[in-house]
Amino acid sequence: MSVAPTAADASTSDEISYAELALAARNHAMPLEALRDDVTPAGLHYLLIHFDVPHLDATSHRLEVDGHVERPLALDLDALRALPSVTAPVTLECAGNGRAKLAPRPVSQPWLDGAVGNAEWTGTPLRGVLEQAGVRDGAVEVVLTGADRGIQGGVEHDYQRSLPLDEALRDEVLLVWAMNGAPLLPQHGFPLRAIVPGWYGMTHVKWLTRLTVLTEPFDGYQQAVAYQFQVSDDDPGRPVTRMRVRALMVPPGIPEFMSRERTVRPGAHDLRGRAWSGHGAIERVEVSADGGRTWSEAALEPPPAPHAWQAWSWTWDVREPGAYELCCRATDATGATQPLEPDWNVHGVENNAVQRVGVEVVPEA
Amino acid sequence: MSVAPTAADASTSDEISYAELALAARNHAMPLEALRDDVTPAGLHYLLIHFDVPHLDATSHRLEVDGHVERPLALDLDALRALPSVTAPVTLECAGNGRAKLAPRPVSQPWLDGAVGNAEWTGTPLRGVLEQAGVRDGAVEVVLTGADRGIQGGVEHDYQRSLPLDEALRDEVLLVWAMNGAPLLPQHGFPLRAIVPGWYGMTHVKWLTRLTVLTEPFDGYQQAVAYQFQVSDDDPGRPVTRMRVRALMVPPGIPEFMSRERTVRPGAHDLRGRAWSGHGAIERVEVSADGGRTWSEAALEPPPAPHAWQAWSWTWDVREPGAYELCCRATDATGATQPLEPDWNVHGVENNAVQRVGVEVVPEA
Repeated sequence: MSVAPTAADASTSDEISYAELALAARNHAMPLEALRDDVTPAGLHYLLIHFDVPHLDATSHRLEVDGHVERPLALDLDALRALPSVTAPVTLECAGNGRAKLAPRPVSQPWLDGAVGNAEWTGTPLRGVLEQAGVRDGAVEVVLTGADRGIQGGVEHDYQRSLPLDEALRDEVLLVWAMNGAPLLPQHGFPLRAIVPGWYGMTHVKWLTRLTVLTEPFDGYQQAVAYQFQVSDDDPGRPVTRMRVRALMVPPGIPEFMSRERTVRPGAHDLRGRAWSGHGAIERVEVSADGGRTWSEAALEPPPAPHAWQAWSWTWDVREPGAYELCCRATDATGATQPLEPDWNVHGVENNAVQRVGVEVVPEA
Repeated sequence: MSVAPTAADASTSDEISYAELALAARNHAMPLEALRDDVTPAGLHYLLIHFDVPHLDATSHRLEVDGHVERPLALDLDALRALPSVTAPVTLECAGNGRAKLAPRPVSQPWLDGAVGNAEWTGTPLRGVLEQAGVRDGAVEVVLTGADRGIQGGVEHDYQRSLPLDEALRDEVLLVWAMNGAPLLPQHGFPLRAIVPGWYGMTHVKWLTRLTVLTEPFDGYQQAVAYQFQVSDDDPGRPVTRMRVRALMVPPGIPEFMSRERTVRPGAHDLRGRAWSGHGAIERVEVSADGGRTWSEAALEPPPAPHAWQAWSWTWDVREPGAYELCCRATDATGATQPLEPDWNVHGVENNAVQRVGVEVVPEA
């Protein structure tokens, strides 16, 4: 029997448990200064690994394709690499990004802001492999199975997520073997993973071993119990799918080691950041230097590739010493923007509340 | 005025503050399954970054050499790469590894076990550059300055550490531009860092901009205030230098997502891990399956390069379901071994208490 987190599991403590710390130590956030990079370097991209990083051999690795198909397949890496290949920059964000800023705090990986990254992924469209196997009439979903195995919610399972068939057949959905021009790193899914542009990270299954075509919706733990947006235990909820709109900035100035508080000198500061949405292009980014009371329009760089983050900048001309709170918020092509306060929910997902960066402006020494 | 942490700053809470969480999110631990690798892949090596990752340009970067020398230098990367080059595997561990296991807990980066890694570093001996500059009589230390700047202990400073001259002149001490055969990643010190085999991580200064030869001991914050081993506020303490002996194992079986507790099936399990010491070669590794009451000898792989971690293995043949606590401990060539309980100290450094891994043995489903 699987055990779903409940609202009562949320912590009212201002402090973090050891179990949460152990997750925070394993699951790497992107330090926000890496927002300056168009392409996130190896080792700075965020990581969320439910179980352990599997140790896989690329030579013997096979992707099995089974279920409701005409011709079950077992493809090795060479067979996949022989298919048409695509390289695309894609922004990935963990659905739980910002979870640790909710109060009470749903107890899971305690992300602050940094569960994001934008890499260049190389692979072949999933669609081509499904066509090779021949999806039979009546199919509704494709289950992606990873080699990572463990226990969550009381259930021992391989990590598995499904995609509706129409999503799986989008040209942009890839089976990927390279990241930033190099073979996938072990922690990013070596030797094969999925990339599903626009969706939160849980969908981009790593260490991919199997595609299974189903005639009924998949009800595995990571699909039906985890990754639900529920405002209360009574709320049946809805599945988490595409990334909400969000902007983040590189914190300006210099940090204090322990508090991470920022210090800047009076003058003109070039604030830079990125914005993204799984629902459409970024149309607008605004910046506030007074905690969200007043907003100014940031300049957008030329539009990036469809699923890569959008660079923006704004000059903060500050003369008066004192404490400031910088905020940024984005608006996407659907008109969706970011709330000033989080939308609390049981699993602590989809928190796209505006980033707030405290800065002390101090005179030159 | 700089402010040293005191014993009263240690937290008696079983929980972690938000400031500690923010550090844990930035500063990546190596997930322990990466102990299986001889060479830690990019992005899995631990990271401790006091301030922000600087954004440096390799083309314009210069290493200045000044202070008590005959000929001050300003060397670009090409000039350094033209010098004799060495590639060596070197294990680095943060001095604060295990800090979060101390009670009360010194408040700083809250490391559990994973602040370690073993990479292959390529560079040129520091000694050659010092000889080129001509160290003058009376020199006692070399200060290494990084481009990372921030505030710690109330003091704004560039990150700086010194080495006694005799340490700096060891052939093994390198100025490094490549890691695992690729240019340094931004977070590992691009384009130039120091590697000081045997010493804790704070010494391997990243984003290196300057070497300054001094005739008096350096008294900067990171040297004279941070990184001291003090058992109480009254203890004048001693500087943290070389890594204490330590062994770690790959946790066997599969994890529970949230608790990280391990589950294994009855049978023979091949336990594997690594051990290292900054004081000498690893001569012995022992393993306990009963929480440290009885110990068995692990097998050592052939000795590695002088400053790389030592692989070891032990077969755990377990038939009886139930709860077990696995431990491992190493002994180095000086006879030093690991304590069962931590040596508490004000800064929470050098905690090499034996690793303890709780495992539940459950019958096959």
